[in-house]
This record gives sequence, structure tokens and C-alpha cells, in this order.
Amino acid sequence: MGIDGKPIVSIVMGSTSDLPVMKEAAEFLKSVQVPYEVLALSAHRVPEDVLHFAKGAADRGVKVIIAGAGGAAHLPGVIAAMTPLPVIGVPIKSSNSIDGWDSVLSILQMPSGIPVATVALNGAKNAGILALQILAVADLALREKVCAFKKGLAEKVRKANSELRDVLQ
Amino acid sequence: MGIDGKPIVSIVMGSTSDLPVMKEAAEFLKSVQVPYEVLALSAHRVPEDVLHFAKGAADRGVKVIIAGAGGAAHLPGVIAAMTPLPVIGVPIKSSNSIDGWDSVLSILQMPSGIPVATVALNGAKNAGILALQILAVADLALREKVCAFKKGLAEKVRKANSELRDVLQ
Amino acid sequence: MGIDGKPIVSIVMGSTSDLPVMKEAAEFLKSVQVPYEVLALSAHRVPEDVLHFAKGAADRGVKVIIAGAGGAAHLPGVIAAMTPLPVIGVPIKSSNSIDGWDSVLSILQMPSGIPVATVALNGAKNAGILALQILAVADLALREKVCAFKKGLAEKVRKANSELRDVLQ
Amino acid sequence: MGIDGKPIVSIVMGSTSDLPVMKEAAEFLKSVQVPYEVLALSAHRVPEDVLHFAKGAADRGVKVIIAGAGGAAHLPGVIAAMTPLPVIGVPIKSSNSIDGWDSVLSILQMPSGIPVATVALNGAKNAGILALQILAVADLALREKVCAFKKGLAEKVRKANSELRDVLQ
Amino acid sequence: MGIDGKPIVSIVMGSTSDLPVMKEAAEFLKSVQVPYEVLALSAHRVPEDVLHFAKGAADRGVKVIIAGAGGAAHLPGVIAAMTPLPVIGVPIKSSNSIDGWDSVLSILQMPSGIPVATVALNGAKNAGILALQILAVADLALREKVCAFKKGLAEKVRKANSELRDVLQ
Amino acid sequence: MGIDGKPIVSIVMGSTSDLPVMKEAAEFLKSVQVPYEVLALSAHRVPEDVLHFAKGAADRGVKVIIAGAGGAAHLPGVIAAMTPLPVIGVPIKSSNSIDGWDSVLSILQMPSGIPVATVALNGAKNAGILALQILAVADLALREKVCAFKKGLAEKVRKANSELRDVLQ
Amino acid sequence: MGIDGKPIVSIVMGSTSDLPVMKEAAEFLKSVQVPYEVLALSAHRVPEDVLHFAKGAADRGVKVIIAGAGGAAHLPGVIAAMTPLPVIGVPIKSSNSIDGWDSVLSILQMPSGIPVATVALNGAKNAGILALQILAVADLALREKVCAFKKGLAEKVRKANSELRDVLQ
Amino acid sequence: MGIDGKPIVSIVMGSTSDLPVMKEAAEFLKSVQVPYEVLALSAHRVPEDVLHFAKGAADRGVKVIIAGAGGAAHLPGVIAAMTPLPVIGVPIKSSNSIDGWDSVLSILQMPSGIPVATVALNGAKNAGILALQILAVADLALREKVCAFKKGLAEKVRKANSELRDVLQ
Repeated sequence: MGIDGKPIVSIVMGSTSDLPVMKEAAEFLKSVQVPYEVLALSAHRVPEDVLHFAKGAADRGVKVIIAGAGGAAHLPGVIAAMTPLPVIGVPIKSSNSIDGWDSVLSILQMPSGIPVATVALNGAKNAGILALQILAVADLALREKVCAFKKGLAEKVRKANSELRDVLQ
Repeated sequence: MGIDGKPIVSIVMGSTSDLPVMKEAAEFLKSVQVPYEVLALSAHRVPEDVLHFAKGAADRGVKVIIAGAGGAAHLPGVIAAMTPLPVIGVPIKSSNSIDGWDSVLSILQMPSGIPVATVALNGAKNAGILALQILAVADLALREKVCAFKKGLAEKVRKANSELRDVLQ
Repeated sequence: MGIDGKPIVSIVMGSTSDLPVMKEAAEFLKSVQVPYEVLALSAHRVPEDVLHFAKGAADRGVKVIIAGAGGAAHLPGVIAAMTPLPVIGVPIKSSNSIDGWDSVLSILQMPSGIPVATVALNGAKNAGILALQILAVADLALREKVCAFKKGLAEKVRKANSELRDVLQ
Repeated sequence: MGIDGKPIVSIVMGSTSDLPVMKEAAEFLKSVQVPYEVLALSAHRVPEDVLHFAKGAADRGVKVIIAGAGGAAHLPGVIAAMTPLPVIGVPIKSSNSIDGWDSVLSILQMPSGIPVATVALNGAKNAGILALQILAVADLALREKVCAFKKGLAEKVRKANSELRDVLQ
Repeated sequence: MGIDGKPIVSIVMGSTSDLPVMKEAAEFLKSVQVPYEVLALSAHRVPEDVLHFAKGAADRGVKVIIAGAGGAAHLPGVIAAMTPLPVIGVPIKSSNSIDGWDSVLSILQMPSGIPVATVALNGAKNAGILALQILAVADLALREKVCAFKKGLAEKVRKANSELRDVLQ
Repeated sequence: MGIDGKPIVSIVMGSTSDLPVMKEAAEFLKSVQVPYEVLALSAHRVPEDVLHFAKGAADRGVKVIIAGAGGAAHLPGVIAAMTPLPVIGVPIKSSNSIDGWDSVLSILQMPSGIPVATVALNGAKNAGILALQILAVADLALREKVCAFKKGLAEKVRKANSELRDVLQ
Repeated sequence: MGIDGKPIVSIVMGSTSDLPVMKEAAEFLKSVQVPYEVLALSAHRVPEDVLHFAKGAADRGVKVIIAGAGGAAHLPGVIAAMTPLPVIGVPIKSSNSIDGWDSVLSILQMPSGIPVATVALNGAKNAGILALQILAVADLALREKVCAFKKGLAEKVRKANSELRDVLQ
Repeated sequence: MGIDGKPIVSIVMGSTSDLPVMKEAAEFLKSVQVPYEVLALSAHRVPEDVLHFAKGAADRGVKVIIAGAGGAAHLPGVIAAMTPLPVIGVPIKSSNSIDGWDSVLSILQMPSGIPVATVALNGAKNAGILALQILAVADLALREKVCAFKKGLAEKVRKANSELRDVLQ
């Protein structure tokens, strides 16, 4: 783990081929010093490992779970079924996906009772930010980090805007 | 159960609201005298019951599983993950479905290694017929039933055609 | 407000025509005794009220925002842009919607930096549940409520399943 | 700015990554000598800058606004909410877009009361032409430019057609 | 015509079955005292009438054209091809439409050189508002009407919001 | 048959439930005195009858085939595979169709070598008109009928337009 | 023209960028010795040329028109509106197309009264074959060519099949 | 054939261009020692060969048929119409496919009475696995192979997971 301390965010993916997308969540959490762990689990290939993971996460001190998957993407919903923790779902546009619609709909359209907090297609960084926002609900120091991050976003746009004027006009 | 004997087909649905669609599978199996059982299980609300069901089905003598669900329809895939039996998936157009696309894609687009034999949206009767065809692979008496059913289909179309000529022309 | 105390969840909708969907979030929060407020704001008709609301929510003690809208549904994203709080988005299938796709995509596909935790089309109850899960991250009493709610879901499915056996077989 | 004089068209984009598309609007306006400005603003990253821009544009002498964005493309609608000026929206097919549907629907499907004049996916040149047509409503000299441009289009097609006959037949 | 004076907006529809949608444009223009005319023309059934209409509109004093059509909705684009005036397109969800996608795409996706200012599916009222905004570019009295209309929208939302608090809380 | 003489157009449908749509083709042909026949055949239920029909149609004097079907609509393509005659395909929006997309794509997207002349969803009347146009290629009397029909269309639109002016203005 | 004699098929395209697709229609017609012509016309850039072409085609001896276009593809429908001849439409997947859906729907979904015989996306060769089939309705020598072409298709598949056995097994 | 013995699975494809996808079914069956055959047949180019194949397959000892096709993919359904055997359909994303939707819907949405067991887009390996599962219904030795294969899947995921921890953390 990049950050010392017991992980409080679990980043789970259905296949290691999802790593290029999902590592953006890890990198964001690292940048704001939130301890996390990264796992490859598959709702379809190791269902009992998923059960074991999901049932135990809260007791291990995990507070938010980020789960990414492509195609018929059941992992986020299956985990959400077995934990009281909030689960953030990241739809991934894998090869043989039907343009990403399959993973978006498989994650988003959860039945009443079992929400998954879905972010944009391949939106793993946003999943990391959302995890930080959730943790910040009860932690003023983390809320400061959210605010600082947003300020940084604004500054980048303003800088780009002034450069644009120089270049284009 | 409508047929005496140990069930060899399990018909499982995510919610009893799926019953109006799913009972067509049961009715077909009844009409061809194949013993079946009907269960309401939910991949999201009772995940451990699903695990228990899926792990034990083959040992209880079940040979084919038919699973129907709507929305982010994980039930067929989750069961397929935990049984060596062939699993037939029925996408259901539930209320708040996005025109049925969600359940179709959640069931159809399973990852490599874990197939679900998907039939048409709301196609529970076809699921029953496919179950019969699968059972008939090793049972000549059942194959006769498949052939008889198909003959019946043809006769109905031919009758409709001759009536059409009378009516329309 | 149905619950005494300062609201910690804000439920915001783009139009009062969204109330039949959005009130399910309110009803859930009421059932678990989480104080909430309900507002009609529109990103397009009263943009400055939205700015005022979003900028001030955290300081007023709000911890989670639920925002629902239909069509080109900008409200959740616009609020998320102006608050450090987690924002849950509820796509609503309004009249003249293109089958709900417009609100789903307008809410889900937020750019990098500004996540919205999107739930299913018309999934306002799930938004309420997700809000509870987020609040429960730092509140063990609320986590108990999450667990109790999930137990209730499981019991309902099990009861439906045993009734199904009685009725159908 | 490529043209002397106070800008009367504002070209705004959500991100400088949209520049390769959006500069076609600028190039067209330059070719017909209409003064314009180009800005990078983001409805989500600098919402208050957008407010400031939109509120002030008319008073600064801007007459038409062209706004382009990808994904959950809120910029055109958010600007339209805060100005009496006509706003032309350009949906952009960005990376991680779901085939462009997200930006098309986020811009097109505006609620009653707040129109955005939407052009084709990546159709920034058409946005420039439409801006000219709008300005030409009250300016006969500009209408001449519209007519001349259309005549040029026709000539190009006729030339291509006669070359085609030479080549192919 | 409801307003005295030579029409400056033409409202054209592909079929009188589009009238229930398109009359909202007329009603809006009437409410702001902008003289308009209403015509049923069809790009496919009376192509020469369309040519005659489009070629002559500007000379008759028309300044903006609103054209609505369903299915393979060619009318707005065909008119835009033959006039220098800005053309606003209204996609209409007619019977046998494929959920409105056909008219949306037939109107929106115009080729480079011939823009149509497209509004939301069935968004005829927004077409009327956009026409007013375009006319207001060079007419301060009309701009006042745009601003007044927007103020009215805001007031309605604020009133709804305060009623909501009374009712729901 | 409504018209004396050997049928020169065959109208075939996959199921008698398609009759309410498909009879519009028959009614059109009757109105222009083109002899036709109507059959219910199913590519899936009576494949050999389809083979027999398709192989024999040309020799029986049939010159154009109109085939309508819903869902996975194979009938038009399967017939086209077995006849040199032009085949017109009518996609039908049947119950359990996924919004008509299934039948549209199953009929339209034929592989290279075997075209089906596809008309709009439920567009059986247009199929009848197209059949007339095809027959008219070598029959000047029929071409007169095409021209007369088109003139009638134009007159209806013009009449509707003048009534519209009376009613609305 | 590749074949001596007055053209009886007109191949028209909206832009010369469509030539790589549309020339497959020409090549097929050349291979079966049917005289044809190739034109670039645009419903939007040279509408009067299109009118002139469509009005005059039948009198010039043209018997079938093939029209291809991308995006908001109005050309086939606009021509069909102005000729009694059968018009075959070829949807083309151009750059900035929304996956081809725009051209497919713009061509296929013609209103009642004005059919366009639509073939598959980029299916220009099939358009050529369909034109031959239409011409063959009244010309036994051409029907022989249709049959010979189909026989050739069958032979190619059979040859591929026997090679497949050699290679793969 | 890679395996000695009479084939019990037939792998059929619409065109040899489908071979890169479909050979994954063959490779899987080879790996589990199930005798198979591979054929190129086309529902549209050699319809009578398809009839002959489908009618005779069961008598030749074939027990399961796997059929893959792209575009308007009729082959699986046409075969299913003419055999009592279970037919597994593989939608293939061919060139000029509309993102694979055409083949998915043409195979999945079969009418009542004639099921096709559809797998994911390009999911030929899953078709092979499903064939094994179907054969295993009455063959305990094959069921062992299914279980062993699933165990292998789980091991691979677990190995990847432990490597992931090493690499990433």
C-alpha cells in the first residue's frame, strides 16, 4: 500500500485487465493520503472469495468500497448486497463490451434496496474523489482536502483559459 | 409442484413480481411432464440463500436452472458462477427498466468462463423449451416431445394461414 | 420536516413534477429517523438560488445531498460543482424524456474531478438508502439501521419464496 | 482575437481538450470577419466564473454565445440559464464519452423555458454559421455573407460532381 | 394570426398531426406579441411548395423559421438548405417513431455548412423562446421580454418551492 | 383476393398477429388494382413451407414479395435468400420487441449478396407503394398510378394547410 | 460510364467522400452489364440541382435510383419525394456520424406515402443487386443474371466450407 | 478434427471471416476432449445446405449445435427452426455491424417456440463451455471437466490477485 496505516478504502476490480482504469482511484487516494488496498476479485470466478471479502470488510475497518467491472458487471452490486458499507461502482469499457452500455447498465440499474453509487464510464478517479467526500462527511481534515482539490481544479481551468487567450487570439 | 417426482429443472426468479413472466416456463414444463420447482431468490437481498441454492442444486438432482430477473439482472450470472449446471437466463422488462436493455445486457454479456444461455426479453416459455431440449440431449423420449411440440407449432401456423386466406381474400 | 432536528440530508429536485419519485427518498429517511429537508430548485430557472443553496449547505450542517432531475438533468452536477459534500444523483424519467437515457447520461457522465453518485432511473429510495450508508460510515448507530434494513429485505424475499411454493406448486 | 473590434460572439468550451473541435467555429467567424472571443470555462470546475461570464456577456456587447462540451455537457445549458442571449450548443465526442450520446442528450434535452440551439456532434463549424445567420437577422450586410457562403457550398458540390464524371465514368 | 402585423416568424410543420406539439410555439409567440404564421408543408409530399416557401420567406419579411417534423424528419434541414434565415428544428415523437430517435437524429445531425438549431424532442415552446431570443439580438424591447419571461420562470420555481415546504414537511 | 387475376405481389407475414399492420399493404394494392395474395408463413415454425413458397413464387408469376415480421425477424431475409425476386421487408413492432430495434436490425442489416428492401417500422403501406413503383418500372400504366397517388398526397397536404390557416389564425 | 448505352440506373451520393462506399454499387452494375451513371448531389448544398435531377430522371430513361448519404441523410428521401421511380437508400457511416444510427434512421423512417428501399449500413453493393432484381422483374435476361449471381455466392460458401475442413481439422 | 471420434458438437459459422472468433469454441472443446466439427454455412447464400445440415444433424449423432453470425444474423435461428437439438448462438461484431447490436438482437430475440441459447457478443469460448455443460447434464465424467475448468478459473484470479498486491502496493 502506498500509504501507511490500515486501509479504509478497498479498491476491487473484476479482472487485472481493469487495472489501467482502476489505478486512477488508487493514485488519487494516495495523493490525499487516504490508506487503501487493491484487490482483484471476480463475482463469477471466485464468488466465495467475494462473499468472504464483502462480509468481512466493515469489521476489518474498511469504510468505503470502490468496485470496477466491465461487461455484465455484477461485482459492485454483488458486494453491495453483502455489506452495510457504501459501494461505489465504476463501469469499465472492456474489449467485447457493447460500447460500455453493458457495464453502465449492469452497475447503475440496481433494484430497490441495494444501491450502488455509480460514476462515469471508466471514471475511476471520480470514484476515488467520491470516496474522499464520503469519508469527509465526518472528518473536517478530509473536507479540507476536498476543498483544496476543488480549488486546484479551478486554478487549472483558469490557467488554461488565460493561455488559450494568448495562443488563439 | 405440478408433476410428481424430484424436480430436475429449477425455475428461479429475482422477485415475485417476475412471476407473471416466469410462470410460462413452469407451464411449458408441466405440459411436457418434466418435474420442476419454482423459487424466489434474489442475488442482492438473500445472497447467501442463492449461494446455498446454487451450490446444492446439482446434488439435489437438478439438471438445468432457469433464472429470470429485471434491471441490473445479476441472478442468472451469479448462479452460473456457483454451479456446473447449464443456466438459462430470462431478461425481464420490469418497471423502471430502461426499455429492457438493462436486463438483457446484464444477463447476456457474461465474461469469458461463465456462460449464461440467454433467451429473448420476457422469453420464459422459450427458456422452458430450451430446458427440455437440453434434457433431451440424452433422453430419446424427451426428444420425441421436442419434435411433437415443433410439429404442433407448424400445424398452428398452417391453420392460421388457411384461415387467413378465407378471411382476407 | 418529518423528523425533529436540523436536517442533515437535503433532497433537492428540479421541478415539483419530480415529487412522486423523489418523495421515496424522504419516506425512507423518515423511516430511519434521519432529519432531512426537501427543496425544489432548478439549475436552469433559478441558478443563483442553486448557487446559494450549494455554497451554504455544508455550513448549515447538511452532510449529504440528494438531487433528482429529468431530461438534460444538470442539477446534481451543478450542485456537486459547488459543494464539498457527496452528491447523490437520481435520474428521473420525465415526460418527453427519450426513454430516460437523457437524464441517466446527463447525471452519470460527469467529467473528471466532479463525481455524482448516480443511482438507477427513478431510484429515489436507493438514494435515501445510500445517504444512510454514507452517514453510517462514522456512526455505528446508523450502521445498525443499515443492517436492520437489509435483514428486513432478506426476510421479505424469504417469506415471498415460501408463499410462492404454497401457491404455485 | 483575429478580427479587430469588440467581440460579438463568445466561443466557450468546457476544456481546452475541446479546442481542436471548437476552433472550427472561430475559423469560420474569422473568415466572415465577425469579431469573436474564445474562452475555456467549466460549469463544474469554475461555476462562479461561468456565472460571472454569463451574467455579463450581454452588457459587454456579446450577441450570441457558442458553448461546446463533452460527456455530461452542462456548460451550454448552464450559460443559457443565466443570459437572455441565444446560446448555441456543440456536443463534443470526448474520450470516455459513450459514443457521443451523453453530450448530445445533455445539451439537446433542455427543459421547457431554457432552450439551447443544438448543432450536430462535433459540429462547431455549423455553430459558427448559425451564429452568423442569427446576427444576419438584423444586418443585411451579414445576410449577404450567408448567401455568399451558401453559393460557395453549391459551387464546390457542382465542381466535385463534374470531376466525378471525369474520374469514374 | 393572433397578432396584427406581417409575420416575422414562420412556424412550419410536416403534418397537421404535429399541431398539438407545434402550437406551443405559436402560443408562446402570441404571449410575447411577436407576429407569426403557421403552415403545414411536407418535404416529401409537396417538395415544390417547400422550395417556394423557403426561397421566398426572407423576402416576405420572415426573420426566423421554426420547423417541426417526426420520423425521418427532413423538413427543417431541407428548408435550411434554401434560405439564409436561421432555422429552428423541433423533433416530434410521432406514432411509429422509434422512440423519437429518428426525428432527433434526422434534424440534429446536419452536414457541415447547413446548421439547424435543434431543440428538445417535442420542445416547440423552447423553439418559440429561442426565436424570441434571436429576434432580441437586435431589438432591446424584445430583450426585455426575454428577461421578463426568465424572471417569471424563476418566480414560479420559488413559489413551488415554498409550497413544497408547506405540504411536505 | 380483392382483385381478379393471378397475384403478382405476395404479402407474407410471420404471424397472424402481424395482420393489423400488414393489411395496409394489401389495402393499398387493392386501391390501385394490383392483384396480390396474403400468406402467413414463419421462417421458424414452418421453414419448409417458406422454402417451398420462396422457390416457387417466381414461377407462379409473382413479381414482388412483401414480407413483414417482428422480433428476430428472419422471414424477409430467408425468403430473399431463395428467390431472384425483389423482397421488401417490413419491420413490425410486436409485443416483447425491444422498441422495434430488433426487427429493424434483423431485416435491414442483411449481408452482402442478399438485399432486402427495408421500409420504416410498421411501414406496410409504404411497402405496398414501393411494390407498385417496382412494378411500374416496366409498365407505364402503373407509373401513371404512382404519379396519381403522389398528386393525391400533395393535394391532401395543401388542403390541410389551408384549413390550418382558417382554424389557427 | 463503364457500360455503353443510356444509363438506366442513377447512383447518387451526398458527397464525394461517400465514393469509396458507393462505388461498390457501380462495380456490381458494371459486372452485370447494366448501364449506369454516377452523380454527386447534395440535398442541402444544391437543392435545386436535386430537384432538377429527380424531376427529370424518369424522362431521361432512368428506371431505378440509388442514393447514398451519411449523417442526417435526406438525399434518398428528398429524391423519392420528386420521382415516381423506386429509390434505393444506402445509409453511410461518415465521420462524426453517431455510429451510423443517424443515417440509418434518416433514410429508413420515411413517412407514409414516400418509401425508400433501404439497405444495410454501407451496403452499396446490395443496393446494386437490388437494382438488378428490380429491373429483372420485367426482363428475363436480367433475371438469369440474378440467378447466376446467387449461384456464384453459393459456390463461394461451399468452397470456403471445404477449405475450412482442410485447414482446421 | 482435433479429437478422434464422431463429432457430437457442430460449430457452424455464417462466413469464414467469423473464424477468428469462432475458433475459440473449437479450441475449448479440443481442450476438454469433446469431438466436434467445424462448418461454414450461410442461411442466406446456401439455404438448402443449411436445411440439409440442420435436418440431419441429430441423426448423425450431433448433440449440440453452436452457430455464430454477424449483422442480420439469421443462421442460429434458422438452424434452431429445423432441429430438435439445443442451438447456442454467438453474435459476432463484423465490419459494418452497427456496434454489434444487429447480431445480438437478431439472435437473441427469437419468437416463442424456437429458442436460441445466446451468449455474449463474440463469446465463442463461452459457447464451447455451455456446450460442455449441456453434454454434462447426462455425463458425470464431463461434469468433472466442468468443475475442473471452474476451479482453474478461480485459481487464475487468485494468482492474479496476489501478484497485484505485490506489484501495486
